[in-house]
Amino acid sequence: MVSKNQIKLITSLQQKKYRIANKLFFAEGVKGIEELLDSNFELEHLFTTQNDFDSVSQEKKTIISENDLKKVTALATPNTCLAVFKMPVEKSITETGLILALDSIRDPGNLGTILRLCDWFGIQQVLCSKETVDLYNPKVVQATMGSIARVNVNYVDLNVFLAQTKLPIFGTFMDGENIYKATLPQQGIIIMGNEANGISPALENEVHNRLTIPRFGNLQKTESLNVAAATAIVLSEFCRG
Amino acid sequence: MVSKNQIKLITSLQQKKYRIANKLFFAEGVKGIEELLDSNFELEHLFTTQNDFDSVSQEKKTIISENDLKKVTALATPNTCLAVFKMPVEKSITETGLILALDSIRDPGNLGTILRLCDWFGIQQVLCSKETVDLYNPKVVQATMGSIARVNVNYVDLNVFLAQTKLPIFGTFMDGENIYKATLPQQGIIIMGNEANGISPALENEVHNRLTIPRFGNLQKTESLNVAAATAIVLSEFCRG
Repeated sequence: MVSKNQIKLITSLQQKKYRIANKLFFAEGVKGIEELLDSNFELEHLFTTQNDFDSVSQEKKTIISENDLKKVTALATPNTCLAVFKMPVEKSITETGLILALDSIRDPGNLGTILRLCDWFGIQQVLCSKETVDLYNPKVVQATMGSIARVNVNYVDLNVFLAQTKLPIFGTFMDGENIYKATLPQQGIIIMGNEANGISPALENEVHNRLTIPRFGNLQKTESLNVAAATAIVLSEFCRG
Repeated sequence: MVSKNQIKLITSLQQKKYRIANKLFFAEGVKGIEELLDSNFELEHLFTTQNDFDSVSQEKKTIISENDLKKVTALATPNTCLAVFKMPVEKSITETGLILALDSIRDPGNLGTILRLCDWFGIQQVLCSKETVDLYNPKVVQATMGSIARVNVNYVDLNVFLAQTKLPIFGTFMDGENIYKATLPQQGIIIMGNEANGISPALENEVHNRLTIPRFGNLQKTESLNVAAATAIVLSEFCRG
């Protein structure tokens, strides 16, 4: 049985200010929740419509009706479970290997997909500009499919960070070097830009290496790739060796 | 001024059965609409909150209030315009070059992103299984960002099609050949599988060339990539030469 106060709390966690105030966020779906349970994230409480998740103690688990789950879900079609976790303290930045810097990524699905890609390609550090969508937005958490537990994400002033780093800085533009022909290092910072506007002019000034993903379509009209799709291609090129 | 009947019609077009019955679909947003206007698609009627789209005749254009636009939009945040187009007759399949076959892609955003990728990489023919989300779903149209006007999409029984084709058939699996080391042709069919289940067993039997996108992350837990992200990497490898 779920109390009105619990429903009110969970619903409030769809908003960033309440996530910060309560130091809590939630994940939905068996796979994503299992991955978080299996990580350093600390479970606050699990709500499930089924008698599952045997590893979770009874005190931390409540059977929720499908009707109540509908009231608290952030999904169009609710899953069978929702788990509230404590928001961990931001770790310090690891300035080694390949680092992805995200300049105002606004779509939660894009950020989630990008973190899943980082996990796949072994990118351990992501830096988000302050304007990037919040990591603990339920739709971001959902789209990471558990990768949120394995990639270190920090929100920083990218201008300040990039101005002081000694690592080479890469970005994709219409007029850069063909990424398929460029020599790409195993250390460096790759900037991916905003969905509508690309990399902002202030950050563009910091880019040492301008890259281009060549277009093979005949027509001149496809102006851009979705940013998560572009990230997939860029990370694939940096990692394929 | 928009009539109640118009609002009812447009709203109904969010559902496939009414799109088919009326042979109409709609697009939202200036860029996507401009691309469709600039193609072979035939405009039925344009609704805009602003006095724009000079190329569209007055009879085909109605100023809509933001309030009315909210009633008909398929977007969480409505744009400034919505255009109803005639649904074109499905063209015949072009069995040449690279063809992408989609096995039960369910998420509209994924299908839209994949079509945008095809447009970028010059893939002119996409075959969708009958279980794949409808091309004219407003969220698919939105996510293609205009590429829907340039990629030929047919809904077919993929089992039947693949059984008769003479082209080589490729698919990605956990146990395939490293895609970064494989010799990839300029003609062939690439199957991308369902978000949760991958390529279905019946289609797997038709695959001549099993490929793998290698994983670089240290942990064994990232089981999969988002299907649109995987498509980006696969098409990039086939096209990069």
